[in-house]
Amino acid sequence: MWPVRVYYEDTDNGGVVYYANYLKFMERARTEWLRAMGVEQDYLVEKHDLIFAVRSAQVEYRKPARFNQLLNVTAGIAKTGKASITFEQKITPAEDNTVLLCDAQIRVVSLSASTFTPKPLPKGISMEIFGGN
Amino acid sequence: MWPVRVYYEDTDNGGVVYYANYLKFMERARTEWLRAMGVEQDYLVEKHDLIFAVRSAQVEYRKPARFNQLLNVTAGIAKTGKASITFEQKITPAEDNTVLLCDAQIRVVSLSASTFTPKPLPKGISMEIFGGN
Amino acid sequence: MWPVRVYYEDTDNGGVVYYANYLKFMERARTEWLRAMGVEQDYLVEKHDLIFAVRSAQVEYRKPARFNQLLNVTAGIAKTGKASITFEQKITPAEDNTVLLCDAQIRVVSLSASTFTPKPLPKGISMEIFGGN
Amino acid sequence: MWPVRVYYEDTDNGGVVYYANYLKFMERARTEWLRAMGVEQDYLVEKHDLIFAVRSAQVEYRKPARFNQLLNVTAGIAKTGKASITFEQKITPAEDNTVLLCDAQIRVVSLSASTFTPKPLPKGISMEIFGGN
Repeated sequence: MWPVRVYYEDTDNGGVVYYANYLKFMERARTEWLRAMGVEQDYLVEKHDLIFAVRSAQVEYRKPARFNQLLNVTAGIAKTGKASITFEQKITPAEDNTVLLCDAQIRVVSLSASTFTPKPLPKGISMEIFGGN
Repeated sequence: MWPVRVYYEDTDNGGVVYYANYLKFMERARTEWLRAMGVEQDYLVEKHDLIFAVRSAQVEYRKPARFNQLLNVTAGIAKTGKASITFEQKITPAEDNTVLLCDAQIRVVSLSASTFTPKPLPKGISMEIFGGN
Repeated sequence: MWPVRVYYEDTDNGGVVYYANYLKFMERARTEWLRAMGVEQDYLVEKHDLIFAVRSAQVEYRKPARFNQLLNVTAGIAKTGKASITFEQKITPAEDNTVLLCDAQIRVVSLSASTFTPKPLPKGISMEIFGGN
Repeated sequence: MWPVRVYYEDTDNGGVVYYANYLKFMERARTEWLRAMGVEQDYLVEKHDLIFAVRSAQVEYRKPARFNQLLNVTAGIAKTGKASITFEQKITPAEDNTVLLCDAQIRVVSLSASTFTPKPLPKGISMEIFGGN
């Protein structure tokens, strides 16, 4: 769970968070989730020529988030493949996590940073993330 | 079909368009499609207290768009309801519209700008957009 | 001093933070500085019809900030007027605050949120921010 | 002079264009100005290992630009050095170019894209841009 504050930069003329910006919040939460697993993405690029790219996103916008609101963003794994992770993500107000503002299924693939072709996660990292044996 | 040039602002560290920014491109195309129908959104807000908000988005990222590339973005109607429009949108390189970079189904609802509750399109505007009798 | 992590959303094709995005980081730091003074901007708009707008910005980009870097952003007052505050702001790497990446003088004016004409800060708030007697 | 339409993505909660986004508009105009001179920036990176980076920006925000407004953005050269160009840029409403919304002096330096150290423009390109002998 990652806290995100809504600043002016995130809002639009309608007085609420601009719809594309929820995807930024979700990517921050995925990044911090990976970091908590010990995975730094700049290291992945430099040492393993590996980059994550979003392959698909299904987003439900249920209630608007507003200027100055403090949000919580979750990132949980729904499914994994050899070179892909599907995240299930939810955004709620920080003060009440029963109110769902926005949720999404985000499928991320791991690619070679230089060729943009699919490339499985290195085994050590894959185990750090997914555990297993 | 709306042309969009990829500038630095749209790209990220991976050398391609950042995934949230395709949603900006698509919103530009929807806005211009509405404008071509005679619908100006600032007028809708001021005269009709009406605002469009995205309710859901399903986005497939198929191939990356790159810095300085000229893109075409389409906006077609897949389905309409009393207070909603589902758009089918595609992004292709301007020089080859058979190469699909990104496509999406975007469901937009019309809301009261002041209360954010559903509000059907005014009849005249609805007819301009959807034709019919 | 406010910590800011550099995410993909902040970077561009050049592999560094996009130049406009440093202004976002600085605005976050100003917002948090105001919050620390007890000033919530959504409250200012609703109760006092007051909004802050940037009137001018002088920004020096000295060294690039990079993807995944943790930054510190400062916000100090350089000068104040009846309806304006000039901030002096600096961005440094979190691990070494002697390396200046970017610094700026940002002049902010307080406006009526409804008319966008200058409007002095309410006295109570002005004292909270600037102290004095 | 480059036309820019203000979309939702550009605005904020205050109902006007977010202050950092004027810098995006200005960069679009600089890019199109270079393109008109025959300079494509992706070509510069690939063939000449050359990238432009903003070194400093002085921006005056005079009047707000609003949602759905059509703007014109100019990019003129104020000064040039061996590895730098200072642009003078103005943003006006498309329907009245005597109303100045925002203007700026933007100093851009040419860098090696791989090392981020100053690198003069190739002579041919320099002549295309600046003319001279």
